[in-house]
Amino acid sequence: MTDWGAEAARHLAALAGFSAPGPGVTRLPYGPEHRAAVRYLTQMMEEAGLAVGLDAAATLVGRTEGGGAGTFYMGSHQDSVPQGGAFDGIAGVVLPVLALRKLAEEGVVLPYAVEVLGFADEEGVRFPTALLGSRAVAGTVDMAVLEMADREGVSLRAALEGFGCDPEAIPALARDRTQALGYLEAHIEQGPVLEAGGEALGVVTGICGIERHALRFTGETGHAGTVPMEARKDALVAAARVIAEVDRLARATPGLRATVGQVDVRPGAVNAVPGEVRMPVELRSEDDSAREAAGLAIQAIAGRVAAERGLGVEARRTYAQPAAPCDPKLRRVLAKAVQDGGGTGRELTSGATHDASAIADLCPISMLFIRCRGGVSHRPDEHAEPDDLGAAVRAISGALRGLGDA
Amino acid sequence: MTDWGAEAARHLAALAGFSAPGPGVTRLPYGPEHRAAVRYLTQMMEEAGLAVGLDAAATLVGRTEGGGAGTFYMGSHQDSVPQGGAFDGIAGVVLPVLALRKLAEEGVVLPYAVEVLGFADEEGVRFPTALLGSRAVAGTVDMAVLEMADREGVSLRAALEGFGCDPEAIPALARDRTQALGYLEAHIEQGPVLEAGGEALGVVTGICGIERHALRFTGETGHAGTVPMEARKDALVAAARVIAEVDRLARATPGLRATVGQVDVRPGAVNAVPGEVRMPVELRSEDDSAREAAGLAIQAIAGRVAAERGLGVEARRTYAQPAAPCDPKLRRVLAKAVQDGGGTGRELTSGATHDASAIADLCPISMLFIRCRGGVSHRPDEHAEPDDLGAAVRAISGALRGLGDA
Repeated sequence: MTDWGAEAARHLAALAGFSAPGPGVTRLPYGPEHRAAVRYLTQMMEEAGLAVGLDAAATLVGRTEGGGAGTFYMGSHQDSVPQGGAFDGIAGVVLPVLALRKLAEEGVVLPYAVEVLGFADEEGVRFPTALLGSRAVAGTVDMAVLEMADREGVSLRAALEGFGCDPEAIPALARDRTQALGYLEAHIEQGPVLEAGGEALGVVTGICGIERHALRFTGETGHAGTVPMEARKDALVAAARVIAEVDRLARATPGLRATVGQVDVRPGAVNAVPGEVRMPVELRSEDDSAREAAGLAIQAIAGRVAAERGLGVEARRTYAQPAAPCDPKLRRVLAKAVQDGGGTGRELTSGATHDASAIADLCPISMLFIRCRGGVSHRPDEHAEPDDLGAAVRAISGALRGLGDA
Repeated sequence: MTDWGAEAARHLAALAGFSAPGPGVTRLPYGPEHRAAVRYLTQMMEEAGLAVGLDAAATLVGRTEGGGAGTFYMGSHQDSVPQGGAFDGIAGVVLPVLALRKLAEEGVVLPYAVEVLGFADEEGVRFPTALLGSRAVAGTVDMAVLEMADREGVSLRAALEGFGCDPEAIPALARDRTQALGYLEAHIEQGPVLEAGGEALGVVTGICGIERHALRFTGETGHAGTVPMEARKDALVAAARVIAEVDRLARATPGLRATVGQVDVRPGAVNAVPGEVRMPVELRSEDDSAREAAGLAIQAIAGRVAAERGLGVEARRTYAQPAAPCDPKLRRVLAKAVQDGGGTGRELTSGATHDASAIADLCPISMLFIRCRGGVSHRPDEHAEPDDLGAAVRAISGALRGLGDA
């Protein structure tokens, strides 16, 4: 019997070799490392009995016809962040191929077609846009993004053409909604929840919505020695109080995650009272209304803290992306498959955006999370155990069978 | 009768012209702008009847012999910060020269000699050291600083030699303590206290001691979407709570000024939980024991906040400079002179270091603060009113007479 965990680990280790020099894995889209990954994955897919092709958005598509109508989609992205790991994204391409190979070896013919999609670019590192491949499948590509350029001045259009793709054919990639049965994306958790719970696999309830606010506090700078405390309008003291309040609010609001990840202090000298602080606040929740209420609350907190000290404040919401709930039926089928493998089918949220976020515009989505060591991702030491990868192969194949029965 | 305020303003405006290009005044030591200032001040001093020379530390010294033994010192620095103002430092050279001219015009012969000292470098902008001239007078120069280099690689020694000075003669500049009667430095306040109190002049009680602490909080970074609030070890949230506590402590401690002027957040991305924060805390007080107690309290606060969240913390005191109290007798004489001119003789602290800090090693010191608009200094819009400058000339000349009577 094939050890699917060892098999998955072997393929992921081989794919990790297709990397620009440096620590960890650096595989940006449309370059030589991407080309090498496409060649490797093509062979893997063909060994699993799939018909393979590269589409106009540089997505590698492996398709197997089934015994009935409709197509079920699976996949994730081939690219990594610079000096990232060997699992994020690429595991979601490798595992469903192995799951299909497993079913083929077992002689199972599914009552629907399956496509495994290896998207070129989800991380958005090379170009100031991302999710081109998954948006193409969903029919939601804004063709204007093709003119965006990378740091070397190469446009996305030119990069695609250089990779052998015809960008003008992207709109034709949109799948027929009436034939799209659903989508399953397997991905390392990138968080600590499964590890803390002692679970190899988790069933995602939905992908969090995100909003970002740009906060700017304006007080008065001055010499740290010559301005008495009672005369100060210290922008950093105000910002610090807001950072503490944001943390308190998020801890008191179920499912909310709130983060201040940057602080820009001006003038920024050891002996200068801060006159201005700019900082972003990011909120994530599966519950759009809870997230939006928190955003309003944080703007109010910023206004109150600034007013108490006679400071000016600007608080603008700069970005908002709604949550994408996972499909209840797909969740049930996936949970059953995980439980059949000995897991509890533990549910958890996805705080990060994935290709599934874009595919949600096409069809019902689902996600299977795989435990990763220390909750770490986007780093060379990103790691998932072979046993957990094997459990994922079995859960995916079980879910595909389950969908046929449902 | 001479309008001493208009006279002072005229000279300061002329000296402001000796500046590198750009907004405001940029007059670093040992360069062409310094040379031009020295020429101008030499003529001013000679017009006041002083014997003038440039010493081995590039201090311009104007001396008038008096009717008795001992020498009283006055002065400040000629240099500015980049894009600074027309008053900081240089006013403390111009005003005592005018005060001596006033006394000479009135036929007053003081019963002691007076030297006006125009120091080259107090701001410490060009070289990573400062106060060379005032330390030379006090006999406290560490000759190793002569090997320090500016950004162009020019050593302080070479800069002095290029300015026509003999660095090896610096130790010989130390004045005889038994003959040093005292030191008076006139300086713009660089703070808002006199303006808020409606006073042109203030008598400084002492120069604050300073200590700096380097704080480093180490938590765990992670994706802002995938790490639940309860699993976070957010170094910025801890740092923010400490910033708020530092502010609270300083407001509750009379005479203490505490500032966090910089925050370095790592990794520093909008969607990354901060894993590490480094920040300095600066404390200033005239009361050394209160300052040191506050330093210990802040280290304890940092430790407690970090422990509550399971973070690591390092808190090191990186710098300490004791307070330099002003001499009670000089304060009384100066206050009397200010009151004779219609002021209240309001007392205030000096939160900033001055050349007087170094001269404190030689003899009793005193400082006269002059109201400046908005408490602003080190900026092109730094400003003191001619009327206030005139009041300072009268107060200095009154104090010199008073010292003779005392």
